[in-house]
Amino acid sequence: MNGSEVKTTQKKYSLQSWSAQKGTDPIPVQKADGIYFWDFDGNRYTDMSSQLVNLNLGFANPVINQAIKEQVDQYCFLSPSYASEPRAELAEKIISLMPDNMGKVFFTNAGADANENAVKIARMFSGKFKVFSRYRSYHGSSFGAGNLTGEPRRYALEPGAPGFIKFFDPYLYREVIEFASEEKATEYYLAKLREQIQYEGPNNIAAIVMETITGSNGIIIPPQGYLPGVRALCNEFGILMICDEVMTGWGRTGKMFAFENFDVKPDIVTFAKGVTCGYVPLGGVAVSKEIAEYFDENVLSCGLTYSGHPLACAAGLATVNYYQDANILENVNQVGHALGEILESFKTKHACVGDVRYIGLFSAIELVKDKTTREPLVPYGKDPEGIMKKILGMLKAKNFMTYSHENVVIIAPALIITNEQLNEEMCKMDEVLSQVDALI
Amino acid sequence: MNGSEVKTTQKKYSLQSWSAQKGTDPIPVQKADGIYFWDFDGNRYTDMSSQLVNLNLGFANPVINQAIKEQVDQYCFLSPSYASEPRAELAEKIISLMPDNMGKVFFTNAGADANENAVKIARMFSGKFKVFSRYRSYHGSSFGAGNLTGEPRRYALEPGAPGFIKFFDPYLYREVIEFASEEKATEYYLAKLREQIQYEGPNNIAAIVMETITGSNGIIIPPQGYLPGVRALCNEFGILMICDEVMTGWGRTGKMFAFENFDVKPDIVTFAKGVTCGYVPLGGVAVSKEIAEYFDENVLSCGLTYSGHPLACAAGLATVNYYQDANILENVNQVGHALGEILESFKTKHACVGDVRYIGLFSAIELVKDKTTREPLVPYGKDPEGIMKKILGMLKAKNFMTYSHENVVIIAPALIITNEQLNEEMCKMDEVLSQVDALI
Repeated sequence: MNGSEVKTTQKKYSLQSWSAQKGTDPIPVQKADGIYFWDFDGNRYTDMSSQLVNLNLGFANPVINQAIKEQVDQYCFLSPSYASEPRAELAEKIISLMPDNMGKVFFTNAGADANENAVKIARMFSGKFKVFSRYRSYHGSSFGAGNLTGEPRRYALEPGAPGFIKFFDPYLYREVIEFASEEKATEYYLAKLREQIQYEGPNNIAAIVMETITGSNGIIIPPQGYLPGVRALCNEFGILMICDEVMTGWGRTGKMFAFENFDVKPDIVTFAKGVTCGYVPLGGVAVSKEIAEYFDENVLSCGLTYSGHPLACAAGLATVNYYQDANILENVNQVGHALGEILESFKTKHACVGDVRYIGLFSAIELVKDKTTREPLVPYGKDPEGIMKKILGMLKAKNFMTYSHENVVIIAPALIITNEQLNEEMCKMDEVLSQVDALI
Repeated sequence: MNGSEVKTTQKKYSLQSWSAQKGTDPIPVQKADGIYFWDFDGNRYTDMSSQLVNLNLGFANPVINQAIKEQVDQYCFLSPSYASEPRAELAEKIISLMPDNMGKVFFTNAGADANENAVKIARMFSGKFKVFSRYRSYHGSSFGAGNLTGEPRRYALEPGAPGFIKFFDPYLYREVIEFASEEKATEYYLAKLREQIQYEGPNNIAAIVMETITGSNGIIIPPQGYLPGVRALCNEFGILMICDEVMTGWGRTGKMFAFENFDVKPDIVTFAKGVTCGYVPLGGVAVSKEIAEYFDENVLSCGLTYSGHPLACAAGLATVNYYQDANILENVNQVGHALGEILESFKTKHACVGDVRYIGLFSAIELVKDKTTREPLVPYGKDPEGIMKKILGMLKAKNFMTYSHENVVIIAPALIITNEQLNEEMCKMDEVLSQVDALI
C-alpha cells in the first residue's frame, strides 16, 4: 500500500479513538527512528510527546527489538498458570527498583486494567469498599478505570459503579483561594481531604488512587508536603495509597518512579507505557509485601488471558535494563533542566503563556487569554473555534508533533532526546507561541 | 535460570491469577512447538486446551513469528491517532470475513476490554442504558466485562455498575423442566427472554450480550432456533445483538465465527485470543455499518494507548491469513468430527460422563456422580475434596494438559491437531475416565 491507501483503508475499516470519524486525518507512518518518524512521502516529524507519553526510549531501540525477536524464537505466549523466564526476571527486576516495602507484581495488558486490578486488590485485601480518586485525573477508559477517572472522559460510563468518590487535587495555578505560601496550600488541601475522609467514613475507604503527578490533565505537580501528607492520612485511617505511575513511571520525571521525588512509599503502584515503551502491550500492579502475603492464603480474584505474557515481559525486561545500562535518568535530569529553563523563558516572553509546569521531561504549557486574569485560552470542555487544534496544526506545519488537553499543550519527548534536538524543537514552539500572542 | 529458579523466582515476585498463591505450582516452560511444550527437564506436555483457548495455531507458527519480526524492523508502536499498514490491512481483512452488515473495527488489547468497549459503543449509539447478559457466562474480569459476567468471578466487582441485567441461557442438560423437543425448549427460553425484556422495558435496553456458545462455563451450545429467535427479539424491540466471539471466533467451531453455525448476523462482534493466537495481545470490536456511520458525526468516546497496535495487528494479519491459506477450517471440521465420535463413545462407556458437548474443536465432558440423577461430580462453586483438581492431576501425570470449570473438563486443542495426535491424547482421557468411574 502507499501512504494514501494506508490512510484511506484505515479510515474506511478502523475506528479512531476519541473522535468523530469524519474529522480524523491520521498521518500514515512508513518508518520511525529515535524521536523521529516519516510519512510515505518522506516528510520527517519529531515526536515531542513520546507518542502517548509511552515511547520513553523512542522508536527502533535495537536492544528492545532484539529481545523481542529472541523471545519469538523461544515462544510468544504461555498461559498465566505456567512459569516463564522473562516473567520471573521482569517481576524480580521491578520489585528491585521499587521501595523496600513492595513485594510482588501482577501483570496486566495496559494501564487501564492495571488500575482496574489495583482497585480489586485493594478491596479484597482491606475488605473495604470505597475508593477515592481525583477530579483532574485520567486512569483509563474501561469501566473501573473510567470510574476512577475524574475528567469528562468518564461520562460515557455514567451512572457508574458505586463506591467511587472524587476529591479535588491541589492545582495552585487555578485555585480560587489565595494562599500565603505553598505550605499553607498543602495544609488546606490535606485538611479538606481529611474532612472528606471523615464524612465518607474512614472504615469504608479501601484506597486513595492518584496519578503521582497528574498527567493528561495538565502535568499538575503536587506542592511540597502534599503527598507525604496524604501518606500520613492513609496511615492514620488504614487506607491504602495507590500511585498510578502509568505515565510518570520509568524515568519520565528524572527518578525511576515519580513518587521518589516526594519521598513517599505507596502500598500499590500501577504501571504500563514506559515498562515496554509500548513495543509490546504490558501493564502491571506492584503490591506491598503485606498485600502479597495476604494472597498466600486468600484467593486473588484477578486474571486475564495475557497476564505475564512472555513476549511482553521480554520486551519489558530489555526496556527496564536499558534505562539503567544507558543511564537514562542522567539524560532526563540534564536535558530536563534545560527544558525547564526554556519553558520559564517562554512564560516571561509570551503573553499567551499563563503557566509552565515541568519535572524531568514531563511538562506542559498552559495557555491563557490574559496573564493577569488567567482566563484560559479556551473555556473548560469547549473549543468552538478550534483554537487548540489550530495551534497543534501550526506546530505540525513545523513537523513538531504533540497533543493538548483543554488549554494545555503537553511536551514530553523521549528520554533519549539531546540538548541539540530539544533546542531545535523548542525554537519552533517559541515561534508558534509568538503567533498565538498575536491572536489573543 | 534453570527451571526450578524460574518457578521459584516467578512465585516469589509475581502473582498468579485466580489463586491463593501457596497452592500454585506453575510448570516452568523452556520450549514449545505446535501442540507440545517442554519443561526444563525435557518432559513433554500436550496442550489440549490451546492454553486458554487462544493458541489456535499452536506454538511457534513460523508465519506469525516471521510477521512479528518484520514488523519489529519497521516499528513496533504508533499512537492510535496515526495510520499504519498492518492496522489498515487487518481491519479490512476482518470486515471481509464478517457478514455483509459489518462496517468497522475498533481495536483493543484483549477480550475483556473488547467487551467493555462494545457496551460503551452500544450505549452511545442507542442512547439506551441497560445491557442484558447471561448467568452462565464469562466476559472478562475488569469492571465492565466483569459486570457482564454472570458466574462467580463477578463477585469481586460487586456491588456492580447499574444497568447490567442477567437472564438464563438454555442449558438443556441441567434444565429443571422437561421439554418434549428441542424446539419446545427454544420456544420456552425465547418466551422467558421476551417476558424479561418487557418487564425491564424494551426502550431502556441497549444490547443483549452473549457468548455465541458459552465457553469457560461449559461449552453450552444453544439449541436450534434459539439464536435466530434472539435476533428476532432484538429486531422487534430495537436492541443490539452483541456476540462475544473471544473464544469461539477464528475457526474454533468449524466456521470462522461461531454465529455462522446459527445463521444470524450480530450488530457487534467482540474478538481477541485467536486473532493473534495470543502471540501479541490484541482484541477488538467489530460494529455494523449503521453503527460505524453514527460515529462519522458523533464522538466515539473510546480510546486506549495500544489501540491498533502495529505489532499486534501485524501478528493478527499473519494469523488470520494463515487460517485461510492453510485451510484450517477443513482440519477443524474433519478432526472435530472424530472428536465428537470419541466423546460420544465416552458417554456410552463411562459412568462418570453425564454429558458431552462439542462443535468443531470446542468441547467439554460434564462429569456426574450418577448418570440417571445427573448429580454433578462436585456441587456448584465447591470442591472440598479437590476431586476436579485430582482429575486434572491424573491427566497431567499422562502429560495431557487442560483445565476445568466446576464439574466440566474442557477439551479444545489447537486447530492444527492431527487425527493421530487426537487419538493418542484421547486414549489418555479414556483411561482417566475409567479411573474416575471407579471413584464414584
